[in-house]
Amino acid sequence: MREGRALASLRSDDGAEQLAHDGFETALSTLLETWNITSDQPIIACGMVGAAKGWVKAPYGVVPCRPLAQNLVSAPSKRFHVQVIAGLRQTTPSDLMHGDETRIAGFLSLNPDWDGVICLPGRHSTWVQVSAGEVISFQTYMSGELLALLTGGSVLRASIDGNVWDEATFDFTVEETLSKPEKLAARLFAIHADDVLNGIAPAVGRARLSGLLIGAELAAARPYWLGTNIAIIGTDAATLPYARALQTQGAPATVTDAERMTVAGLTVAYRHWQANR
Amino acid sequence: MREGRALASLRSDDGAEQLAHDGFETALSTLLETWNITSDQPIIACGMVGAAKGWVKAPYGVVPCRPLAQNLVSAPSKRFHVQVIAGLRQTTPSDLMHGDETRIAGFLSLNPDWDGVICLPGRHSTWVQVSAGEVISFQTYMSGELLALLTGGSVLRASIDGNVWDEATFDFTVEETLSKPEKLAARLFAIHADDVLNGIAPAVGRARLSGLLIGAELAAARPYWLGTNIAIIGTDAATLPYARALQTQGAPATVTDAERMTVAGLTVAYRHWQANR
Repeated sequence: MREGRALASLRSDDGAEQLAHDGFETALSTLLETWNITSDQPIIACGMVGAAKGWVKAPYGVVPCRPLAQNLVSAPSKRFHVQVIAGLRQTTPSDLMHGDETRIAGFLSLNPDWDGVICLPGRHSTWVQVSAGEVISFQTYMSGELLALLTGGSVLRASIDGNVWDEATFDFTVEETLSKPEKLAARLFAIHADDVLNGIAPAVGRARLSGLLIGAELAAARPYWLGTNIAIIGTDAATLPYARALQTQGAPATVTDAERMTVAGLTVAYRHWQANR
Repeated sequence: MREGRALASLRSDDGAEQLAHDGFETALSTLLETWNITSDQPIIACGMVGAAKGWVKAPYGVVPCRPLAQNLVSAPSKRFHVQVIAGLRQTTPSDLMHGDETRIAGFLSLNPDWDGVICLPGRHSTWVQVSAGEVISFQTYMSGELLALLTGGSVLRASIDGNVWDEATFDFTVEETLSKPEKLAARLFAIHADDVLNGIAPAVGRARLSGLLIGAELAAARPYWLGTNIAIIGTDAATLPYARALQTQGAPATVTDAERMTVAGLTVAYRHWQANR
């Protein structure tokens, strides 16, 4: 990074799910092999790296608080100078985030004085109420993980293509699930039955499953998104169905790129750290 | 079998999910190795063996109809005389069953003139409206498969023990999900968050997940179970949470053993076949 801009980037699938507590230094070393990183160059890290099963446990900020409420925590490393961003936790109802706080801080640094609700979809999606620069409350959903589990290993797998979706089917299914959320459980197996009995296009199967899961999430998150500013932070693939579903509910959202917000948030954290060292 | 009673039984995990179309004869041959089965002894089969991916595709009965509405279909075998029971299908909403029709026929043979709703829990659970000896309509749910997927491979896996459950937590969660089904999606990740932040007993985690899934199923199946006779057919482990959840909703159910109903249903099918050959 230089002056808040990324000069280059590297990517690895090694994360807290894959690595043991003492595996982070080696993984980072492998990833950064081609870069000439000295032990005094600061590395700012966010995400599960700061969770109990990460590299170092960074004590949570407790909402309501600023997204980067806590000081950075040094990871135990001889080779690198790693500073870890703490996640946030909520007491009632119980909830926690690791990484989204950084994207929220990035979003707020680019949109000062922004109040409203931020939706961060992904494997787990989080809805976050933001006011006066603070995270007021948040709620995490498992829709992305459920979609992956059902697409990968359930009776529905033969009826779903992960790469295409039928928009009209998606719209209809979201609307139906929002208006009768109690019918959700009855509509999952019907995707399989419809496929066996009538044959359905894989794009339709995917749109039905996605519409059911996102519809159920929107039903539960209604107090978050009804009648307020909404921003969605994520990859194109993750944000698209959420933006579409909200649009059809008369709740248009601003869509922003997760990587850009992460870089902006890491920059905020770096400047805090530099000012306080 | 002799005169409607099982003399001995054998069990194998080889089924339509594991076997190719031409693998059934060998699998059956291996299973029956120690029995001296001649090629003229009738073998009556039910379940996925009669599905498109089974041994022989047995044309579905279409509801409303008797549970064993169709004639048995011979499987293509040189070594064995196998007669396969057809499943049932429903046109609107699309649904299908393979095997439950046999247990329902068994139940009705032991309880003639019984009208009401039969619930058959398992990997997929089916709710069946029965009147005047016919299956009127049915609805299949994926709760058992969802429980297995979430217990086996999701972020919730560390918070759940599959062998124990806390009854009070289960009762509370079913009640909560039935009264606010739109909140379902918000309550899944909370099991993980509660465990990380406060620590919860694995029996409590299991009861919460099971209560959420069965609560959502009961919410969708309410038109089936409200104000009618209910019978549950399944294994002890499968029927217990359903019986308990219905009981707390003021809808007590008769619980019967799946294996006993299967044997009774196979006997009914055998007698039909013998009378019509």
